[in-house]
Amino acid sequence: MRQLVRVQNFSISSDGYGAGEGQSVERPFGHADPADFMSWAGATAHWVNRTDPGGSFGLDDYITRDWANNIGAEIMGRNKFGPQRGPWEDYDWQGWWGDEPPFRTPVFVLTHHVRPSFTLGDTTFHFLDASPEDALARALSAADGRDVRIGGGVATVREFLDADLIDTMHVAVAPTELGRGERLWTSPDELVDRFHLEQIPSPSGMVHHFFWHRGLS
Amino acid sequence: MRQLVRVQNFSISSDGYGAGEGQSVERPFGHADPADFMSWAGATAHWVNRTDPGGSFGLDDYITRDWANNIGAEIMGRNKFGPQRGPWEDYDWQGWWGDEPPFRTPVFVLTHHVRPSFTLGDTTFHFLDASPEDALARALSAADGRDVRIGGGVATVREFLDADLIDTMHVAVAPTELGRGERLWTSPDELVDRFHLEQIPSPSGMVHHFFWHRGLS
Repeated sequence: MRQLVRVQNFSISSDGYGAGEGQSVERPFGHADPADFMSWAGATAHWVNRTDPGGSFGLDDYITRDWANNIGAEIMGRNKFGPQRGPWEDYDWQGWWGDEPPFRTPVFVLTHHVRPSFTLGDTTFHFLDASPEDALARALSAADGRDVRIGGGVATVREFLDADLIDTMHVAVAPTELGRGERLWTSPDELVDRFHLEQIPSPSGMVHHFFWHRGLS
Repeated sequence: MRQLVRVQNFSISSDGYGAGEGQSVERPFGHADPADFMSWAGATAHWVNRTDPGGSFGLDDYITRDWANNIGAEIMGRNKFGPQRGPWEDYDWQGWWGDEPPFRTPVFVLTHHVRPSFTLGDTTFHFLDASPEDALARALSAADGRDVRIGGGVATVREFLDADLIDTMHVAVAPTELGRGERLWTSPDELVDRFHLEQIPSPSGMVHHFFWHRGLS
């Protein structure tokens, strides 16, 4: 199988928002409650930040344990990397993820304000001022035959969807409305002209949306 | 996470049969139609025997692509390895899977009639006359820190369930009755005293049953 460009485990509200208004260090999801977006994954046995035993091994766990499966690089927007905007005031901020970020691959951060690459644990962050096409070419090369994950946030996923560069996309829709913030879609039906879509309700209350591009088959 | 003992992608009829009566080289599932058991997986992009592009990337594909994820060894019964019974008449039969079996790990075949190990492609078959406990100890050691898959058939899965050696089990239940053959259960409810259970219907018509042992969490 050729290298794929995949969105995985991207959580949004029932009205299509991936983050609320007013994102900050203290509130990475703005006015939204992070639990609405994260708790389905946090309850699974393979949750990437789990430190204790336990957790579920059902549908939601299949999805969390697929997050890194055959992934060789990630592309993320600057808003996922951190809350600063504009020119970097300092380089001390090295992301939300501590000394061992869960990516364990090259990560390409899209920003108009480039800064030097750095390595934390098994993850190296590179900063690119590039089009989606050019960033993807870099990531596909770095992934060494494996797939590239588009990690978000909303603006980055939208940019890659608009450029028609996404092959497969998993979106977990929470049973909560958000009302305002960064919006992925008004309805998933907006994508069915280009993508096959399966909607699978989970016992956790999330509805998993699996998209794959009609050009794949 | 410690090494797990997993049953994956084990398909049965709605009345609990994993194979029909009268298994042979020509009819590996006996009187049952193999399509009832296999077509849900065969339709997915990551089906292990797929040679053409295409296939779905929805729920069923998450399950097929998890089949080898972190698996380091398989244990199977002699009836899965082949249709011969009793003492081996010859060693020419090397399984159903051709020159490159999909396992790509050590495979331990449980039989009262041991024969020499052999290697095909990336898979080595070993033949053991051993209890489930002893076979599992061998497989866990060979898996080198990864998990062990209990590959079937029905009698082998039952044997490991009866010895309470299974940690997680995925059973795909087809919307077809079989009436007779090798039976895994009368009802999945027989297992809920020991296992958590999620039942997730798929667009393919299968109902995926995800079990995980209550001792895990």
